[in-house]
Amino acid sequence: MDAVISRKPTRTRGARLRIRRMHLHTQREPIVVMRTDCPVCRSEGLAPRSQVLLRAEGREVVAILFQGADATLAEDEIGLSEAAWELLGASEGEWVTISHPPALHSMGSVRSRIFGTTLDAPAFDEIVQDVVAGRYSDVQLAAFITAGSALPLTDDETVALTGAMARGGAQLRWDRDIIDKHSVGGLPGNRTTPIVVAIAAAAGLTIPKTSSRAITSPAGTADAMETVTRVDLDLAAIRRVVEAEGGCLAWGGALRLSPADDIFIGVERQLEIDPEGQLIASVLSKKIAAGAQRVVLDIPVGPTAKVRSSAAGHKLAMRMRDVASRFGVETVSVISDGAQPVGRAIGPALEMCDVLSVLRLEYDAPRDLRERALDIAGAVLELGQAAAPESGNERARELLEDGSAYRKFERICLAQGRFCEPPKAALERVIESNTKGRITEIDNRKIARIAKFAGAPDDPAAGLRIHVRLGNQIELGQPLITLYADTESEIAYAADYARLVENGLRIEA
Amino acid sequence: MDAVISRKPTRTRGARLRIRRMHLHTQREPIVVMRTDCPVCRSEGLAPRSQVLLRAEGREVVAILFQGADATLAEDEIGLSEAAWELLGASEGEWVTISHPPALHSMGSVRSRIFGTTLDAPAFDEIVQDVVAGRYSDVQLAAFITAGSALPLTDDETVALTGAMARGGAQLRWDRDIIDKHSVGGLPGNRTTPIVVAIAAAAGLTIPKTSSRAITSPAGTADAMETVTRVDLDLAAIRRVVEAEGGCLAWGGALRLSPADDIFIGVERQLEIDPEGQLIASVLSKKIAAGAQRVVLDIPVGPTAKVRSSAAGHKLAMRMRDVASRFGVETVSVISDGAQPVGRAIGPALEMCDVLSVLRLEYDAPRDLRERALDIAGAVLELGQAAAPESGNERARELLEDGSAYRKFERICLAQGRFCEPPKAALERVIESNTKGRITEIDNRKIARIAKFAGAPDDPAAGLRIHVRLGNQIELGQPLITLYADTESEIAYAADYARLVENGLRIEA
Repeated sequence: MDAVISRKPTRTRGARLRIRRMHLHTQREPIVVMRTDCPVCRSEGLAPRSQVLLRAEGREVVAILFQGADATLAEDEIGLSEAAWELLGASEGEWVTISHPPALHSMGSVRSRIFGTTLDAPAFDEIVQDVVAGRYSDVQLAAFITAGSALPLTDDETVALTGAMARGGAQLRWDRDIIDKHSVGGLPGNRTTPIVVAIAAAAGLTIPKTSSRAITSPAGTADAMETVTRVDLDLAAIRRVVEAEGGCLAWGGALRLSPADDIFIGVERQLEIDPEGQLIASVLSKKIAAGAQRVVLDIPVGPTAKVRSSAAGHKLAMRMRDVASRFGVETVSVISDGAQPVGRAIGPALEMCDVLSVLRLEYDAPRDLRERALDIAGAVLELGQAAAPESGNERARELLEDGSAYRKFERICLAQGRFCEPPKAALERVIESNTKGRITEIDNRKIARIAKFAGAPDDPAAGLRIHVRLGNQIELGQPLITLYADTESEIAYAADYARLVENGLRIEA
Repeated sequence: MDAVISRKPTRTRGARLRIRRMHLHTQREPIVVMRTDCPVCRSEGLAPRSQVLLRAEGREVVAILFQGADATLAEDEIGLSEAAWELLGASEGEWVTISHPPALHSMGSVRSRIFGTTLDAPAFDEIVQDVVAGRYSDVQLAAFITAGSALPLTDDETVALTGAMARGGAQLRWDRDIIDKHSVGGLPGNRTTPIVVAIAAAAGLTIPKTSSRAITSPAGTADAMETVTRVDLDLAAIRRVVEAEGGCLAWGGALRLSPADDIFIGVERQLEIDPEGQLIASVLSKKIAAGAQRVVLDIPVGPTAKVRSSAAGHKLAMRMRDVASRFGVETVSVISDGAQPVGRAIGPALEMCDVLSVLRLEYDAPRDLRERALDIAGAVLELGQAAAPESGNERARELLEDGSAYRKFERICLAQGRFCEPPKAALERVIESNTKGRITEIDNRKIARIAKFAGAPDDPAAGLRIHVRLGNQIELGQPLITLYADTESEIAYAADYARLVENGLRIEA
């Protein structure tokens, strides 16, 4: 029946309105605003929150309808949110035809999935295509994600979703074998990527690493790299850098690799769930789309990490390997300790200082960050056959200690546009312990949040340094954390929150 | 951790803004708009689509944040959608404190439900209270509904949800026994309620019937009744009418009976799912909140009705009975034929004409509507002990045929404020058959949609009359449907759609 409705515009009289850009930022959901007295709403039977189809010369977008104050729009105008504006590729004052959207055929698959039917590859392809085209409302996305959590995706479904997501956006092709790495679930300060890429490229491997900016965390690898070089490279620039240096450390956002992933993640974050099948599809779809044949996965395990137990970590590693193999991608997982932050620093510039101190072989470089980076780099070298089995870590250490890794890192940054020192924050404040005892617990989430309240990642220089580790004996008045921020109010704000959560530390006598 | 966040406002500096009413209609989801350059967003780390807590002297609301063109709002202003405005009880220019909302503790229950844990009564109470308070985003609501569909609610959970929803709003108490009726899943034209209420009240039973307006259908009982009397009565007026006449036929919207129901239904409609557990809780929570001890359920069964098979109908009837009994409510179900529309007419005024013709014993009153109303009224009389077992239908027929039902209906209308004839549409158009053969199928949904395109229910006089029934032999040029509308464009629009879907009829040679 609704399939028929979609043909209505050709029959509808006067269901045309002029576009008005509202500069309304709604994250990704496209929204349009029509006047409460708009005759089109009446003739089309459109109520607030119903989905509407906008068409302009072949281009179209499905958006959620709100109705607005008659004052803000002219009689013949329709207001577009930024998401709607971009998806439609609209221009100010352009005429669009408004109608009911066609029935979303793929929602039929989602409904049967909700009621227990497993879906095949074509069904996932259709769903992902509609999701990427912006045809799914947040409610429909939430239903899809929830159904795949309540009735977990089977292995075949996970493979099908992974493939659909990988095919749902840009797909990079390379004239040589590509290796990549990925950390599952951010661990504060766990900024191994720049070191691993520098070592791998120095060893002659090709590792075109693209990273995301922070979404909920105080810093993403792209945020950290941006404090020393340019990261907003287009595909041509990335290819140029990789041709020249064998590796890059760029922001992946511009490449549209697995665009459905970002949409699903947005909903999962609102629900605070991260079902395994979707997690696997999320990680692998981006790697497959990036053209990698080999991937090293870093899986930190700890009570406040994404993966809570080492058993769960190994299970996840096996599923990742099996799903990846279905796409001819070879994965190796490094299960690492996620019980506490890595390195000293949290925040884009501060983390980059840690990274540089490791690459520059500085005396006080954080050992845990270095050792962890060497473990992962070792696995990369072995998987990429740049080192014999069991000798990857040793080879990685040589390339770090003879300075080739740092020189490679510097050249990659210069190839990306510049190489400078990270910025420093205007203000800092040391938080001292008001008690004595042993550190028995460090809450990664609370530590991360303190850094965010200090201004990270929007303010690249903001964040914190943590001076203690699990098991340390703490004296009264001993420095625990140093906060870095650029405004008094932010530093006070972070300090307030730190006090509230006892600095995210448990200190027991 | 987030529980702590909720204490932030007391510590936050300057996170206060002045309210600006935006007259933005977003259905029920509260939305606020802040300037893209608003310092509060920065200091609170608020991004588009994040949830924000607004507080003003003890009152509070959780809303979804959008960011808007800096031109539309002053530096210190925050724009509120109508839903946010009403939930907060805001006033123009009032100052509010903005902060992160407290963690929604009940979402923890929803998450464990997603991952397979069944929930107890306190958990459902907490969820429903948060939902009614507007603290759930649409995404969170969709997750709750989907989880209860993918992993269906157990009987105990259904009871718990029903109770939570009934307690979640107003609860009526009466000084006498109350009987009620409900039709599960609207069937076009199935306007038995006014007839049943008139007969039951004429028999001396107390039946304070409140009905909804159309949501997706071309007419609700409240829409139809509004064409002959006032239906927007407050509780005091309803009590007055019921005291005097033993029954009423009012709109229930003003009473806030099970307000969570309307919110859940809104999401279920977007997903086009109607899981059984939620359906039972939806129907019974409203009846329990209305104070009914006895309820007759009309369950139409047919390929295009909500309930598809008679087996499913009986299963639903049993579950309804079992759940209701846990609240001391007695239910009897009448499984009826839902294969085609009931009566001749679809649309508020047109359906009321059918109802009046039955009550007035007119020669050409639609027999199917009358017989169906007598079946349900009979069940009501027996359940209410106003008729001996097996004799309810007969007793109902007497009360209809001796005119008592019509007199009672008239008195109820007058007690509600007036009694007038339904309005007539300005235009009508007969659609004739362009083929000959037998009617083998009637699609209730398509028929209903034709009536909506003619303008029903917004235009009470609009709709259609259907002149044929399943099994009828049709000649070329024989009238099938008459369309009624008040504007040329609407009647043409409905005719276009009717042609598109072949009038919702299958005619086979």
